[in-house]
Amino acid sequence: MAFKFQINDDVDWKIDENLLQKAKDNMPEIYHETVIPERIVEIVEDTDKLGGVSVKESSSKIYSLSDTTYNRGTEVIFDLGDHYVGRFSIDIDSVGSPMDAPLTLKITFAEVPSELTSDSAKYDGWLSSSWIQEELVHIDELPIRLNLPRRYAARFIRVSVLDTSPKWRAKFTNPVFNAESSVKMNDVTLKETGNVQIDNINVIATKTLLDCMQEIFEDEPKRDRRLWLGDLRLQALANYETFNNTTLVKRSLYLFGGMTAKDGRIPANVFTKPNLLPDDTFLFDYSVFFGVVLSDYFDRTSDWETLTDLYDVAKKQMDYAFKFVDENGCLSLPEEYPAFIDWSNDFDKTTAAQGTLIFSLKKFIQLSVVLHDQDYQYYEDMLKKLSDYAIYTLYDSEKVAFISGEDGEINIASQVWMIIAEIMDQATNQKIIQEMIDTQFPVSGIATPYMYHHIVEAMFIAGISEEAIKLMQEYWGKMVDLGADTFWEAFEPENPDYSPYGDPIVSSFCHAWSCTPVYLTSKYI
Amino acid sequence: MAFKFQINDDVDWKIDENLLQKAKDNMPEIYHETVIPERIVEIVEDTDKLGGVSVKESSSKIYSLSDTTYNRGTEVIFDLGDHYVGRFSIDIDSVGSPMDAPLTLKITFAEVPSELTSDSAKYDGWLSSSWIQEELVHIDELPIRLNLPRRYAARFIRVSVLDTSPKWRAKFTNPVFNAESSVKMNDVTLKETGNVQIDNINVIATKTLLDCMQEIFEDEPKRDRRLWLGDLRLQALANYETFNNTTLVKRSLYLFGGMTAKDGRIPANVFTKPNLLPDDTFLFDYSVFFGVVLSDYFDRTSDWETLTDLYDVAKKQMDYAFKFVDENGCLSLPEEYPAFIDWSNDFDKTTAAQGTLIFSLKKFIQLSVVLHDQDYQYYEDMLKKLSDYAIYTLYDSEKVAFISGEDGEINIASQVWMIIAEIMDQATNQKIIQEMIDTQFPVSGIATPYMYHHIVEAMFIAGISEEAIKLMQEYWGKMVDLGADTFWEAFEPENPDYSPYGDPIVSSFCHAWSCTPVYLTSKYI
Repeated sequence: MAFKFQINDDVDWKIDENLLQKAKDNMPEIYHETVIPERIVEIVEDTDKLGGVSVKESSSKIYSLSDTTYNRGTEVIFDLGDHYVGRFSIDIDSVGSPMDAPLTLKITFAEVPSELTSDSAKYDGWLSSSWIQEELVHIDELPIRLNLPRRYAARFIRVSVLDTSPKWRAKFTNPVFNAESSVKMNDVTLKETGNVQIDNINVIATKTLLDCMQEIFEDEPKRDRRLWLGDLRLQALANYETFNNTTLVKRSLYLFGGMTAKDGRIPANVFTKPNLLPDDTFLFDYSVFFGVVLSDYFDRTSDWETLTDLYDVAKKQMDYAFKFVDENGCLSLPEEYPAFIDWSNDFDKTTAAQGTLIFSLKKFIQLSVVLHDQDYQYYEDMLKKLSDYAIYTLYDSEKVAFISGEDGEINIASQVWMIIAEIMDQATNQKIIQEMIDTQFPVSGIATPYMYHHIVEAMFIAGISEEAIKLMQEYWGKMVDLGADTFWEAFEPENPDYSPYGDPIVSSFCHAWSCTPVYLTSKYI
Repeated sequence: MAFKFQINDDVDWKIDENLLQKAKDNMPEIYHETVIPERIVEIVEDTDKLGGVSVKESSSKIYSLSDTTYNRGTEVIFDLGDHYVGRFSIDIDSVGSPMDAPLTLKITFAEVPSELTSDSAKYDGWLSSSWIQEELVHIDELPIRLNLPRRYAARFIRVSVLDTSPKWRAKFTNPVFNAESSVKMNDVTLKETGNVQIDNINVIATKTLLDCMQEIFEDEPKRDRRLWLGDLRLQALANYETFNNTTLVKRSLYLFGGMTAKDGRIPANVFTKPNLLPDDTFLFDYSVFFGVVLSDYFDRTSDWETLTDLYDVAKKQMDYAFKFVDENGCLSLPEEYPAFIDWSNDFDKTTAAQGTLIFSLKKFIQLSVVLHDQDYQYYEDMLKKLSDYAIYTLYDSEKVAFISGEDGEINIASQVWMIIAEIMDQATNQKIIQEMIDTQFPVSGIATPYMYHHIVEAMFIAGISEEAIKLMQEYWGKMVDLGADTFWEAFEPENPDYSPYGDPIVSSFCHAWSCTPVYLTSKYI
């Protein structure tokens, strides 16, 4: 992992309270669903599933949970039957002699069975171990209803009794998971495509999105729960095709609009708890996507107030982006303002970044037209310069591919983003995609559904629909085959156990940016 | 350890709500004292102290606590300056970039420095590991004031940061320990004895008692916090010489009186939280001490109401005890109703148990005289039978010692309890004690201040006062030398790291039954 935490403690922030007030005014209601575990399960070896493990129903039955009592070293694993986000509570009592010692429990929440096989004490990833969904609880007096105050993302809940005393045992009844979201599955009717696998993928994609739609579009409900711009763009697109909660998109736009750097940069993410706070991380592509999200939102809603409130934020960011464009139209990003593109840093991202800027600039120009911005021509000129550089310098017509970086590397991301930027004619786009398929498929070294989304979308844009559908089925379908209830943050089909964090126990198995099949299907099939 | 948990699930209980109501009516007020840590310390090797470790003041100063920030793998140890019982709270904030991961803390409470060197994960004792005073806390949002809800017994509080993230560090301010007791040190004026070491022991003994005096006389504030009859007897004696809170003794007597077995047995201890509940553990000597505590209480208070309410409880227990006395006056206890005497099970307890019964019966007979019980003569007859058996069968005049068990074992406990039972004339008592000193001192294989108390008291009763004072100074003084702020549950001078539980991390270092020097001093010096 070449990931580097950004620490920018010298940012001058512009906090616009008027814009933030509008974000607060659009706070969604949170719906609650009482989820009762469907069954008690045990972990079993299963080489077909993620991490080589799966679950099977235990001989202990959920309907006779109170018949079993637990002492030191015993445990019960509840299966909610699906992935949920929320809070856990359970009745606990003691059975036997009087309770002559506290009860010590370790309660572990897992999105996938393989998390239950990891030993948190041996965690050696680079991301904070604080993310491991595991609580140590001492209970001095029984009976109680244990209400854990924190929120978890989980399908499985393991309650391990670390100790009682030899004189009594613990008894558990009424486990309940109180699930939370700002949308409801019942509000969606998914279109049937006639392809059962695609239909199934879409159900899971929609559930993934639902679990991430809380008071904001969280990028993932298990860990940081922040509003990330790159994730937001894709969540908003999938949301329009499903829950169509445009208020939450509006709120998200105001949150970013209200918390920018004075120099115009929009942060990669913002915190909303305990207070509104911009993160000091900046990712170039995420920043310029602000205008894209605004444009997509306006296309759907014709909400003039939001557009006029936030246009200047998008414009200032676009102007800031141009600082890194030379007189030839070549984008060169400094180390402290990288483009994300994908978790992998094993390929050159220069050309892909140029593609994201062209794509975003086009969307921005649409807004400038709507608003009759007198600077309109300037942006058109910049677009031409950036596009020309891409067409005449970055595109290698002999290799039918865009090259990237000083060594002229040809990689998938460059082709994909230049297709999405739509700078070539459709015939050339098709040739580029075909060449990409011929020379670089099967895809390897790409670790995120986020980047796979863009590959599939580029293929659809270029009209290579059959191959696009095939790739979507292979990629998201393989997650389903491996046991996914919701789609994951990271997945390399050739290396299913890959985690960007060095240890899958902190990986996110319900991640907003992987919810896009439902958008792709709706738009292109 | 030959300790065997008793599980008696077939006891028919007689719950007397009238008596229990009187226990509730005498609930004490709890006083609170705000304790600010005196300093930050580090653990250092120190072969002169318990467990081979001690503390020294850290270069980090408590007055500049906020100048230091903490990330993964760092810790701070607060020293309260003395042993207290209560609850901990602290302000926590993050310093640096926005808080992009939860804060995970391990917070350990220790009565003595050596507890901080134990690895709780490797605990291998037979007592529940749930007693280890260690919390794992995840905090999602900072700043907060962390108020840990549980009560701890501690002088040292270690806050270990298990993880933050690389982007920020934790900052701690305003650590406060809110100490609790039903009595106040200011209410006591300890007599000066002219012996500085004894005076110092008495201060520590009084603090030990204070920390155990909560809503009941707890046997120890770190662990089970129950009201044990054997501990109560000694606590009450020390209490009369110090805080003289006779209401708490009354409450304790009613608690036992209200929860007895239908057959008359009084349990070794009762629970008071969350509800009043008798434990299913029965210890013969503890049971018969009920009448002793009542007698001692009546001597001090002349409280006729309590005496008349509870006399029958004492009587029924005494009658039950006689089931195990044969026609010769020999007490033989069944395995399920053992006498405790001491934690050690490496000596025969038969004769010592007979001593506890004679001692208790004498106290009971005093009450029967006061109340003009018409069965008085029966108890006198039983006393004579038990005493005669001890004098004519158990006492070996050639060896100048009481023998115990089938093999005629001579041990300290037998001599001590027969002296306390006062069945021989004073000249014989002195000879017995002198022989015991000559042949069995230095004491070995006795693990509790509880048994040492009885050795010292027996020596005082026999008039061997100089040697009694010397033993008290050697035993309690050695705990002081090893670093005691309060006196311990278990201490074998010849084996200072001995724990009755197989691991000192769950040992109790503030234990009611070790508070008696202040009583012994007051009564005998």
